[in-house]
Amino acid sequence: MKNAVTFDLYKTDSGTRARRGCLHTPHGDVQTPVFMPVGTQATIKAMKPEDVAGLGHEGVNIILSNTYHLYLRPGHEIVRKAGGLHKFMNWKGAILTDSGGFQVFSLGDLRKITEEGVEFRSFIDGSKHMFTPEKSMEVQNALGSDIIMAFDECAPPDADRGYIKKSLERTTRWLRRCKDSHKDVERQSLFGIMQGGFFKDLRYESAMQICELDLPGYAIGGLSVGEPKEVMYDVLDNCVELLPSDKPRYLMGVGSPDCLFEGVERGIDMFDCVLPTRIARNAAAFTSVGKVNLRNAVHTDDFEPLDPNCDCYCCRNYSRAYLRHLCKSNEIMSSMLLTEHNLYFLVRTMEKIREAIEEDRFLEYKQEFFDSYGEF
Amino acid sequence: MKNAVTFDLYKTDSGTRARRGCLHTPHGDVQTPVFMPVGTQATIKAMKPEDVAGLGHEGVNIILSNTYHLYLRPGHEIVRKAGGLHKFMNWKGAILTDSGGFQVFSLGDLRKITEEGVEFRSFIDGSKHMFTPEKSMEVQNALGSDIIMAFDECAPPDADRGYIKKSLERTTRWLRRCKDSHKDVERQSLFGIMQGGFFKDLRYESAMQICELDLPGYAIGGLSVGEPKEVMYDVLDNCVELLPSDKPRYLMGVGSPDCLFEGVERGIDMFDCVLPTRIARNAAAFTSVGKVNLRNAVHTDDFEPLDPNCDCYCCRNYSRAYLRHLCKSNEIMSSMLLTEHNLYFLVRTMEKIREAIEEDRFLEYKQEFFDSYGEF
Repeated sequence: MKNAVTFDLYKTDSGTRARRGCLHTPHGDVQTPVFMPVGTQATIKAMKPEDVAGLGHEGVNIILSNTYHLYLRPGHEIVRKAGGLHKFMNWKGAILTDSGGFQVFSLGDLRKITEEGVEFRSFIDGSKHMFTPEKSMEVQNALGSDIIMAFDECAPPDADRGYIKKSLERTTRWLRRCKDSHKDVERQSLFGIMQGGFFKDLRYESAMQICELDLPGYAIGGLSVGEPKEVMYDVLDNCVELLPSDKPRYLMGVGSPDCLFEGVERGIDMFDCVLPTRIARNAAAFTSVGKVNLRNAVHTDDFEPLDPNCDCYCCRNYSRAYLRHLCKSNEIMSSMLLTEHNLYFLVRTMEKIREAIEEDRFLEYKQEFFDSYGEF
Repeated sequence: MKNAVTFDLYKTDSGTRARRGCLHTPHGDVQTPVFMPVGTQATIKAMKPEDVAGLGHEGVNIILSNTYHLYLRPGHEIVRKAGGLHKFMNWKGAILTDSGGFQVFSLGDLRKITEEGVEFRSFIDGSKHMFTPEKSMEVQNALGSDIIMAFDECAPPDADRGYIKKSLERTTRWLRRCKDSHKDVERQSLFGIMQGGFFKDLRYESAMQICELDLPGYAIGGLSVGEPKEVMYDVLDNCVELLPSDKPRYLMGVGSPDCLFEGVERGIDMFDCVLPTRIARNAAAFTSVGKVNLRNAVHTDDFEPLDPNCDCYCCRNYSRAYLRHLCKSNEIMSSMLLTEHNLYFLVRTMEKIREAIEEDRFLEYKQEFFDSYGEF
């Protein structure tokens, strides 16, 4: 029985832990390290799927979508009847869905945790729902994504050691239940999620427990939840290598340019984040010369492209003055153009990172990037 | 001295006044009758210009933009410095700009009319401004559109005969001032606008006055301002033929499918309207089987395309269930897809109208269209 998703590790950078590999999925190959654009509600906000697929020089072949949102609306049975998420949203590449765990745990007072699962209320109509490991698998099976994530608890960053330990152990028990209830491993691959907060020994404990289940991939959860970046990098320094080197490693919810470099340097293969698409809808852009806010008056009569070193659709065809006009006028086109640019920027940066790893000059490229980008 | 925009009348339908022609502009030819999509603030809302240019089977080669909006934001001098509106917004086809008259007259208590022009306040910051025929020409000259419209008064539909008469005479005086102050007729063509409310004799008077100026095109203003459609058709029955047959005739602000047919039948060559793009952002679509509202629950599990007889990007790739999901989720993609479909629908319908006129079967095609579309 062949796993839906397999991983080839091509090489490791000579000076760092940075890895160059490839995910083979039922919807095509994905070169790693990779940044996955997020399409929460079965659409990458403000972009056509063909335009997403065409980003960068090599294109994008994997996106992320959210189980929690799609379960509530339109409902996973609708997506199943549509022929699955790929067909529903007209996306021909691979899809990774999260488990819904992160979202229901973010609801605070609106949810109740038991050994069975999590009871929560809908953000749409207040109706009561229950997510369990089995339910999350059922929903993700209906969605038909290539990679499905385990239903875990992402404990609050301020939780005490006792709670984190209890929580990661429950996450392991839930992972076993996910594995037991997910049957069609040739169609979809289940990834486990390491927890353990900012405690190195608990991260170790979590890693040992989940790796025992021999899954086709592993994620690191519970990071980028408000802690200083140094804390995250310190955890990564100590826990990435606890995961098997022949399996893909996914750092969940991380996607600022600096974090991509730091994650790759520590051996991460996959990233996702709403940051590039979200800031785009707030008139902000990543560029090779730093972050730019297009509402700033300095752009009023600046007829240069947004990023002088970018060859994306936006930078080839429009000026900062035009983008500022669109942002000030609240035009949908501003979200369209800035989303396309921001995703292009991260995708293209990741392509250059892959090339640098291949040529054993990852740190050199990192330095070059930051020399141009400036302070974060 | 050659006019920027010239018109060739190819033929007239055998059974009606419907005309088949071509506008030659500095930015390419435009086959008529034509529907012009509206890009109020230098963008067709929710569409990339390349996608607009690719609509229908023959493509779109003319759009409309608004002088009033662009004067206030970003300011016509910014657009001039950008190299003109075409370059600013990345539109390679022709552009028609209105004069700003309609918008400033719509401001009600916020404006004051004198013989000199109209004083009004900005909707953005309340600042005071003055539009005169000369100012409107100056602004439109800066924008660099292919067709510029005369600064006219579109009198309120409930104005009495005395006011309408006074107003149309002032509109003629203003038209003369527009013509006198617009110098570069080889770069931009000025169209005059007929007024006269719903009074046939005043329409006649207005037509005689403006046609004396021998302009490269004429528009009919002051219609589709809230009156019953029969009243508009009655005015058109009597006044379209007052305009010279060798010049293009433009019915301003009209664009519902039924009005396009009725206008073409009465000898109109050009139309514009925000309707298809505006209703798209409210989850509504024109289809060959009538108007569809995608928020309607009946579409929840309807996996058929929006329009069974449409070959647009939206109908080739997405289901009504998906479109409903996007609309319910307030996703930008719903505006993108429905705008593209609605414009495609009108553009494609106009292509079929042109073909029908060429083959002397306009009324036959009209009947066929309405048999399928149903009641308006």
